[in-house]
Amino acid sequence: MTRYIFKASALCAGSLSIAQPAFAAAPGADAVSGGTAYILNTLLFMIGGFLVMWMAAGFAMLEAGLVRSKNTSTQCLKNIGLYSIAGLMFWVIGYNIAYPGDFNGYVGGFTGPYWMQDVGAADLGTGYSVASDWFFQMVFCATTASIVSGTVAERVKLVPFFIFVTVLTGVIYPIVVSWEWGAGFLDAMGFSDFAGSTLVHSTGGWAALVGAIIVGARTGRYGADGRVNVFPGSNIPLATLGTFILWLGWFGFNGASQLAMGTVGDVSDVSKIFVNTNMAAAGGVVTSIILTQLRYKKADVTMALNGALAGLVSITAEPLTPNVGSSILIGAIGGAIVVYTVPLLDKLKIDDVVGAIPVHLFAGIWGTLAVAFNTQSEVDGVTLSIAEQLGVQAIGVAATGVFVGIASAIIWFALQVTLGVRPSEETELSGLDIAEIGVEAYPEFARTA
Amino acid sequence: MTRYIFKASALCAGSLSIAQPAFAAAPGADAVSGGTAYILNTLLFMIGGFLVMWMAAGFAMLEAGLVRSKNTSTQCLKNIGLYSIAGLMFWVIGYNIAYPGDFNGYVGGFTGPYWMQDVGAADLGTGYSVASDWFFQMVFCATTASIVSGTVAERVKLVPFFIFVTVLTGVIYPIVVSWEWGAGFLDAMGFSDFAGSTLVHSTGGWAALVGAIIVGARTGRYGADGRVNVFPGSNIPLATLGTFILWLGWFGFNGASQLAMGTVGDVSDVSKIFVNTNMAAAGGVVTSIILTQLRYKKADVTMALNGALAGLVSITAEPLTPNVGSSILIGAIGGAIVVYTVPLLDKLKIDDVVGAIPVHLFAGIWGTLAVAFNTQSEVDGVTLSIAEQLGVQAIGVAATGVFVGIASAIIWFALQVTLGVRPSEETELSGLDIAEIGVEAYPEFARTA
Amino acid sequence: MTRYIFKASALCAGSLSIAQPAFAAAPGADAVSGGTAYILNTLLFMIGGFLVMWMAAGFAMLEAGLVRSKNTSTQCLKNIGLYSIAGLMFWVIGYNIAYPGDFNGYVGGFTGPYWMQDVGAADLGTGYSVASDWFFQMVFCATTASIVSGTVAERVKLVPFFIFVTVLTGVIYPIVVSWEWGAGFLDAMGFSDFAGSTLVHSTGGWAALVGAIIVGARTGRYGADGRVNVFPGSNIPLATLGTFILWLGWFGFNGASQLAMGTVGDVSDVSKIFVNTNMAAAGGVVTSIILTQLRYKKADVTMALNGALAGLVSITAEPLTPNVGSSILIGAIGGAIVVYTVPLLDKLKIDDVVGAIPVHLFAGIWGTLAVAFNTQSEVDGVTLSIAEQLGVQAIGVAATGVFVGIASAIIWFALQVTLGVRPSEETELSGLDIAEIGVEAYPEFARTA
Repeated sequence: MTRYIFKASALCAGSLSIAQPAFAAAPGADAVSGGTAYILNTLLFMIGGFLVMWMAAGFAMLEAGLVRSKNTSTQCLKNIGLYSIAGLMFWVIGYNIAYPGDFNGYVGGFTGPYWMQDVGAADLGTGYSVASDWFFQMVFCATTASIVSGTVAERVKLVPFFIFVTVLTGVIYPIVVSWEWGAGFLDAMGFSDFAGSTLVHSTGGWAALVGAIIVGARTGRYGADGRVNVFPGSNIPLATLGTFILWLGWFGFNGASQLAMGTVGDVSDVSKIFVNTNMAAAGGVVTSIILTQLRYKKADVTMALNGALAGLVSITAEPLTPNVGSSILIGAIGGAIVVYTVPLLDKLKIDDVVGAIPVHLFAGIWGTLAVAFNTQSEVDGVTLSIAEQLGVQAIGVAATGVFVGIASAIIWFALQVTLGVRPSEETELSGLDIAEIGVEAYPEFARTA
Repeated sequence: MTRYIFKASALCAGSLSIAQPAFAAAPGADAVSGGTAYILNTLLFMIGGFLVMWMAAGFAMLEAGLVRSKNTSTQCLKNIGLYSIAGLMFWVIGYNIAYPGDFNGYVGGFTGPYWMQDVGAADLGTGYSVASDWFFQMVFCATTASIVSGTVAERVKLVPFFIFVTVLTGVIYPIVVSWEWGAGFLDAMGFSDFAGSTLVHSTGGWAALVGAIIVGARTGRYGADGRVNVFPGSNIPLATLGTFILWLGWFGFNGASQLAMGTVGDVSDVSKIFVNTNMAAAGGVVTSIILTQLRYKKADVTMALNGALAGLVSITAEPLTPNVGSSILIGAIGGAIVVYTVPLLDKLKIDDVVGAIPVHLFAGIWGTLAVAFNTQSEVDGVTLSIAEQLGVQAIGVAATGVFVGIASAIIWFALQVTLGVRPSEETELSGLDIAEIGVEAYPEFARTA
Repeated sequence: MTRYIFKASALCAGSLSIAQPAFAAAPGADAVSGGTAYILNTLLFMIGGFLVMWMAAGFAMLEAGLVRSKNTSTQCLKNIGLYSIAGLMFWVIGYNIAYPGDFNGYVGGFTGPYWMQDVGAADLGTGYSVASDWFFQMVFCATTASIVSGTVAERVKLVPFFIFVTVLTGVIYPIVVSWEWGAGFLDAMGFSDFAGSTLVHSTGGWAALVGAIIVGARTGRYGADGRVNVFPGSNIPLATLGTFILWLGWFGFNGASQLAMGTVGDVSDVSKIFVNTNMAAAGGVVTSIILTQLRYKKADVTMALNGALAGLVSITAEPLTPNVGSSILIGAIGGAIVVYTVPLLDKLKIDDVVGAIPVHLFAGIWGTLAVAFNTQSEVDGVTLSIAEQLGVQAIGVAATGVFVGIASAIIWFALQVTLGVRPSEETELSGLDIAEIGVEAYPEFARTA
């Protein structure tokens, strides 16, 4: 049985068409009906949504594997807790801050608590169910908090961490989102961030960076003599699993950000996004392996995992317009960024437990800037030049950094002077699991140290 | 780029419509054709089915993480074995008991072995493929057995356990299902259980409760002096992973129980179910964390995991009609039930290794009763009052408890007097893995104890 | 609420229709429009594709769990690396070798580097988006390499392994695929291999077998006195998780190999494939458990896991035409093959770390031959007899074995005489993780040995 009978005509007869025709608009036997399109659009949000929800498990496993075993239970609890809090906060106020409709473009336009609205509505005019859209946006919200969780692991108390998450997911992240996806000032300038290299990943990265600086490094991490003590992750297969989960979830993250698959053009775009997303990650992995092999004579597996994630973050700002080769390149550069900036953070004595700042912030900035080379926005009827687009992308990066940085700093400081952020040094050394959770992660396994 | 252009009009212009219009019925350009609806309905069953199948992995990981490491291999084998047995038994007789068509309403109407029927049929009149429906029902069947597996872990021999599973999945569960989903007497009374808080989760919970009582507690669990000895789970990240897997699978469990997405109304309902399911779980998590923090000054991670599951079980009886706020509340009460009933079972010396009885039975009962406040059935053309509905729900709970309790007790007793259910105390103390499986879960890791 | 109102009429009233009518072709209200079919076909490739991608995680966890902990990080890195390399190589040349269109049928027809073609095309005439097809084919490619990875684990250096993967996924596998799915000589003969028992699994199995022979057994595995030393896997729950992941992914592997769900007949077929795939795996599990229990008085969990996989591999060559009972039988025989051939390999001193040769090669051959009893091809307008089909299937098996065996042997030998394939005995005994990766998998857990 030949498996791909269409392929012969499509690929080999040179009949490739590059344009994405909107067949849905065509009348006649090929048309997609309004009701069918509505169902398919809604289905995209649901599939994308459950894949992104699954990323919460990915972050949990990645972080559980990369912390020391005395803090693993805490990391598990932080992750399931933050995902839950993010959903609740997005319901209470986040969604309405993020998508305010007509507003001044910066803050505001908040149209009242979300619970006064009905997610159960079916309105054929919108083209998809409100609940499906809401679900998809909601699951994005937790990602930002997961990033912070990884960076400041092993030395932040549970309650202040959850309070930070509450503000981050309920207010800070939604405001940033409103600037672009909510039709705010960045959108008006022509800023472009398809699935959130900046809005999601850099936002989390900035909050993590500020947190790492204010909270300080783990006790004993940076010796008085300038020596960096490595605290190796306690469970590499779990971290590997987490990375694969995130990779899988990213098809939903990027793919469903097309926001529609009710037309031939849209579904073709979604599938192209799948390809580009996968290949950028592959580029990040291979680059990380090669670079660590060359540099250290060993192919560091945690670098390969972070290389995959950096590739994914890099392509997130624009997974549609690049061709496959460009996507691989974008991801590969993301992977290289990780290999070179992880040691840099250690030089600066910024203690990032899982490498989330290189992955989500640095690769996120790279991905956002790289957009300019692949697509240019139209502003007031005029298409930006590459240089102009690059400038606008940089403004978006900077605006996010300034706002998230300041807002995060205020919250972290406020927590520090009130509840206190760090546990006692004694608690930290014996591990947060016993003190804060009361449940050891691996109570039966004897420790080497 | 604004990300959600429709949202402005849909949510902010106040044009929300609450009703779920059946657009499919509308003629003209918006209509969904019969063939398209058939494909979409079938697709829902397939996606829902593979998500529910994935829950088998979730139970396996949850239980593997919560038992002691000397019994972990056994727990892995029990879980992959029970999922396989459940599928085979559902094929041999279960499906035809569960969905007998016209029958007396209690037992019977069995129309012959299933293997004489053809799952490959495509009949446009049914609106979906027979195989897809069969697949979806089949994967539900294993859930009940997974619940039992967790409760009676660490002290039941493999062969009698598998025999119990054979009867439970082949006969007991299908009979309960026939009462409601198979159009039996509970359905006729107006009992309502959308995706199975009672039919699936309580059924498993009753079988587990009876098993725990008859089999008895693990050796050394309850001291002669009344002291409860805690046997902590050996691998918390695995248990966390299992919980996330179950959470993900639950979108299929509840969402695809809508049984159709070939109309605009149906797909909108499915997406609303996604939202409510997620938010109930989030409510369960946050409640568990807060309550354990307040009560024990520590936020027990296993309670948070069970809080998530209890939230999910609670919303399963009616994930469609509640609004988001009610769903959160229903899930939160489920989480509270877990926190307060786990210690209660220990007082009664009922040894439930993973907390499955609080999660699946107690929260299942709660969820089933809570239906009455959100939806009322129509019986003989008259809509029940809330009180009447509550009564009917209670009858369903009681009928299931009496039947499953007695049937399970008979099987457990029969196994006890024939094969014997428990291993020798020596075997139990050295762990089931060596004696029954011959494969240790972690042969290289030194034990602390 | 009755749950399955359609069922009464469909299954109980005897109205089952066995044929798969192509409703899409029907005019009128039931028709599926061309655009809708295009979207649904594309969606099948995307869902199937992400499920098969997820199998990469399954292989990673299976292998990480079955090797000794001193080689676990290496196994994680090999798996994420090989998946990435496979994708890149499939892009560089693999896809165009595999699907060359009109060619001599054996090798060639290569139409130029793939990166010169555009995956973003939307051409309604093909019935699906090119990118979605490409994505689905690409994810298959890595499976072959994962099989090799498991067999030759614990004694192959990283760089030569990755070089082997590069050739295997870029050249060897695509050539085999071209013979059948690319309309080559096996296809012309009537060879039938629906989703790749031979093309994918046996190809990987042959490469693994040749690798195991040339590379040799792990040091100390086979004593001078003929004694077989068991090196037990270090983490059984991870291996269990890996198996469940693979099982889930297989719904995409087999189901989406239908290549279309834009008609009522196609989607019905996909759902029937889901059922058969699941039941074959269940048959493999139960058979393995029963046979090991009878033979060894213990139900070996790793045999049950491999039994599931063998059932899945066995049904992969023809998951559509068998009825459910036949599917269970096909899977059960696959499970039996594993139980009896794992010890056989040890007698031959062929060291297969995870049992991949019995699972993927032996069960793959069985599944390929079993096709003849369930379906017969039409060649030049004449339908083959069962005996003729069996002969053609055997030719396909043999051709693949000869080509892959020789090609693999050449590459393994070339690597051996140039880079060297094996690490030093000292490195092997201390574990590859420290020497090659620099990251231990479980640095904190004390070892028993």
